[in-house]
Parts: sequence; C-alpha cells; structure tokens
Amino acid sequence: MSGWIAVDWGTTTLRATRMDGARAGETRESGDGMNGLSPEAFEPRLLDLAGDWIDGPTEIVVCGMAGARQGWAEAPYRAVPCPPVAAPLTVARSADPRLSVRIVPGLSQRAPHPDVMRGEETQIAGILREVPEFDGVACLPGTHAKWAHVSAGEVVSFRTAMTGEIFGLLSRSSVLRHSLGGNDWQEAAFLEAVSDALARPEALSARLFEIRAADLLEEQDPAIGRSRLSGLLIGAELAATKPWWLGRDVIVTGAPALSQAYAAALRSVGLAPRILSAAEMTLAGLKTAKDLP
Amino acid sequence: MSGWIAVDWGTTTLRATRMDGARAGETRESGDGMNGLSPEAFEPRLLDLAGDWIDGPTEIVVCGMAGARQGWAEAPYRAVPCPPVAAPLTVARSADPRLSVRIVPGLSQRAPHPDVMRGEETQIAGILREVPEFDGVACLPGTHAKWAHVSAGEVVSFRTAMTGEIFGLLSRSSVLRHSLGGNDWQEAAFLEAVSDALARPEALSARLFEIRAADLLEEQDPAIGRSRLSGLLIGAELAATKPWWLGRDVIVTGAPALSQAYAAALRSVGLAPRILSAAEMTLAGLKTAKDLP
Repeated sequence: MSGWIAVDWGTTTLRATRMDGARAGETRESGDGMNGLSPEAFEPRLLDLAGDWIDGPTEIVVCGMAGARQGWAEAPYRAVPCPPVAAPLTVARSADPRLSVRIVPGLSQRAPHPDVMRGEETQIAGILREVPEFDGVACLPGTHAKWAHVSAGEVVSFRTAMTGEIFGLLSRSSVLRHSLGGNDWQEAAFLEAVSDALARPEALSARLFEIRAADLLEEQDPAIGRSRLSGLLIGAELAATKPWWLGRDVIVTGAPALSQAYAAALRSVGLAPRILSAAEMTLAGLKTAKDLP
Repeated sequence: MSGWIAVDWGTTTLRATRMDGARAGETRESGDGMNGLSPEAFEPRLLDLAGDWIDGPTEIVVCGMAGARQGWAEAPYRAVPCPPVAAPLTVARSADPRLSVRIVPGLSQRAPHPDVMRGEETQIAGILREVPEFDGVACLPGTHAKWAHVSAGEVVSFRTAMTGEIFGLLSRSSVLRHSLGGNDWQEAAFLEAVSDALARPEALSARLFEIRAADLLEEQDPAIGRSRLSGLLIGAELAATKPWWLGRDVIVTGAPALSQAYAAALRSVGLAPRILSAAEMTLAGLKTAKDLP
C-alpha cells in the first residue's frame, strides 16, 4: 500500500489530500475545524470527508490543532532547538481498524519568551525538504504569524505575532470598519504605512485611529484605509521581529496574497525574500513526517 | 425657569441629568446610544427617558455622538487650537415646542495628523471649569482614549489611541480570551507589562501572544494574563503619547477603575497625575455649554 492521507487540521478548517507515495492526488476541504469538535468526533468527520478513499489499511498523517489538548489526541509540544518534525509522532486512537493515525507534535519555547506553534512546524519541515541547506528565517504569515530561525536542520527559536487576528478584528469589528473597504490593493499606501510603522513603531497605538479621522475629515478612499491598516500592522510586526529578519535569508510561506504583501514589505527594507506555497510546504512536511519510524 | 437637562449621548449609552441651574439632580441612563438611531428617533428616545421632567419650556444641552453626521443634528467639528466648548452650539429640531435643544460640536485636527473627538471636548471644558488655569495634558481614557494638550483655555492639539476598543476585542474575541479571566487586578503584573511596553514598544505585536503561550506552557493565572494585556496596551499608548505627557501636568478623567490604572501607569514613569471624575467633568462642561449665548 503506497496510498495514505495527508491531513492539515486547523482551528477552523479540515483539509485532506489523497497521497500515493510522494505524489499528491485530490484535496478536499471542510469547515470541520478542531474548534468545537470533541475528541471522539475527529475520526467520523475525517471519514465524512475522505472515507471513500479508504479501501484497506491506510496511514493518516495529521498536522495542526488536532494535536492540541482539546484535539483528537494531545501531541505534547517538543522544545526548540530541535528539528521541526521528528519521531515519534503521536498515535491517535481510531475505531476503524484499517486506520493508523499519527499526529505531528507542535513546538514550544520557554526562553527568551514563551511561545508555541502547531502546524507551522510541518510547513518548516516542508521548507527544509525543498531547500535542505536552508539557513535563515521562515516567515509564516497568517492568523498568528510565526517567524522561525532555522539553521542546521533545526528550529533554533521562534516568535509569534497576532497580526492576522488583529487585522481581522479591527477590520470587521472596530470603528475602523466604517473607513475600510474593497479588496483593491493600494501598494503605495501599504508601503508608506509599513515605513511609518517601522520608523516610529512606538506610535502604532495612536496611528490606527488616524485612518478613521482621515475618512471623516478628508473622505479618504476606503481601499487606502484598508491597505494602510494592513501596512501599519505588518510594519509593526516587522519592527517586533527585526532581530529575526535583519541580514537574514527569508522564505515567506503563507496564503498567496498575504505572502505577496509580506514579501513587498520585506523588499522595502532591503531583503530579497523567496516565496514558497503554504499548501505545498504543508504537504511536503507531511511527507517528511510520514517517512518517520 | 432654572430647570434644564444635561445629556451625554454616546455611541452606546444615553445619559440624562436633571439640572436646576448649576445643581445636578437625578441622572438616568438607557441603552439608546446613537448607534442605530435615525435622526427622528433621538427626541422620542430622550422623552422616553426623561419626558416626565419636562413641565414647561426646557433647555436641553447635549454632548457626544448625537452631534455626528448620523446623529440628531450634525454639529460640525471645530478646528483646534480653540477653546474646548464655544458659541455657537448647534441647534437640533424638536417636534415638542417646549424643548430647545443644542448640541456641543466636537473638535478636529488636520495637522500634524488627522484626528477628531466628540464628547471629550465637553469633559475638557469641565476640567477647565474645575481648574481654570490648567496648563497641561488631559488624559481621557475610554474606548478611544484622548490625550489633549490644554493651554491658555484652549485645546492646542490632541491624539487618539484605540486602546479601550483593542483591549475589548482582544479580551472578548481573540485567542487570548482563553488565557484571561476574572476581575482581579494584579498591579505588579500590570506595571511590569507597562514597563515592558515602554522599554521596547516595537515588540508589542509579538508580546501579546506570549500571554497565550505562558498559559499553555506554564498555566499562568488568567488574572495575571488580563492585567498583563491591559499593561501592554496602556504601556504602548504611553509610548505613543510620550510627547504629550513627558514633563507635563496631567489630569486623568475616565471611568473610575480605568482612571486608576492610567494613573498608576503614569506614576510609574515619574508623573503625579490628578484624577477627576469623568461623569462630573461631563456635567461641568455641559454647564459651561449651557451658559453660552
């Protein structure tokens, strides 16, 4: 049997890919994220999505929040420095005897500050599969962006910024929502805001409301408001993570539009980041995990 | 007739106080905030709340969002530098001929950055009624905290920080909500976070997630998490507004617990802020407005 199933089980999304050895077949997705599933519900939800792929003993390799304490089975964090993915994976129980389910543990860090990741370690393993000698920083933008220093095949240290979640909250639920609009990307406004945030990062807290005031006083284009909000927050993240990226080789791995935005911001500070697809790096990392004893 | 009604009409709350000259009587409050009221709905909502106080021709003096474009009547912003409250107030139409309704305009600023306030100008007028020679900074914490430089009876310039709204969004709706709890105030954790944010304001974006990680890895007390989040955000606000408060006389005017937190943060950077009650300053400012021609 060379058939197996690669699973990326996030907080809000379940994504399964039918694999034949290292070759990826169909990918299916559902909204059955880990949030709100009881431990017993994981197996049936996975079978709902991909049960018809299973025609005999089948390995399932899972990364992401399915390994959290409230997930399918807790896969305790591994402490950095360590390879992003290493044996043993955590075995999860399944009622269907044909299934053999293993979950990739997340990573933790105690010093210089507490931090955790679940799922991104698999993307980093994918980056190392793609660029085996990579020595630099993996920038993984998303709800919680991760910046990981990678060297000699290990994650040395990492840092999380809540940029994506804060952007979502401010743009959907704060007073700024009245002054943001459209999906028009205004690169100049974005880069100016990145530069403003990097030049005076301490002013962030006061700069956000300017977007609202500029709308009320000058009827600023809401597409500019949106690009500016994104630029202020990504610029603040770059200010916070400067020790990570300064003078380093950076690979950006996230959703396509978001990766482009981060790459543009990084180019504006003189870097030459490479972009690798997050979906592909997740799959590549799951292949590495599958090959572990 | 020395009877009149002082009204503070905010985004989410309507508050009316029965006045006899400068003497305040009963105060009533309802959830009929400006949000979601059509212009015609303001008068009936006010009469619902306080109609039984009206037994003849009655002056109503209103501050806050009732003067916004979508409010009872638009009271166009007055540009700083200017006295916080000055004639003419904006007259609002009323169907009941016994009512004479005037609304206090908000303030605007074009440079060095766009900014607006509505309601806080009345609190500043109240501060000047209480401390007529005040030369310093009025710090008005709340959903959108305002820092106003006040000198020679005028607001010279001001700055808004969205601290209260961001605290609310992060503590109710972000992943941090799992790691915050209780109403226990942990002053030491709060002040340490203020100091962390002031020492390295550029790190804010990465420090927030540490609260979650410290909970997952070290089961940090959620009361400490909550005090720490408050300290990080208020510290970031102090970093952004340093040119306002540094070396200045500061008066803090907000809700009681919030004023105490800001005052503690300001004392930790060597200031000796005074606290004046926001409710009283609003009322004092409305008295000043009522006396205008």
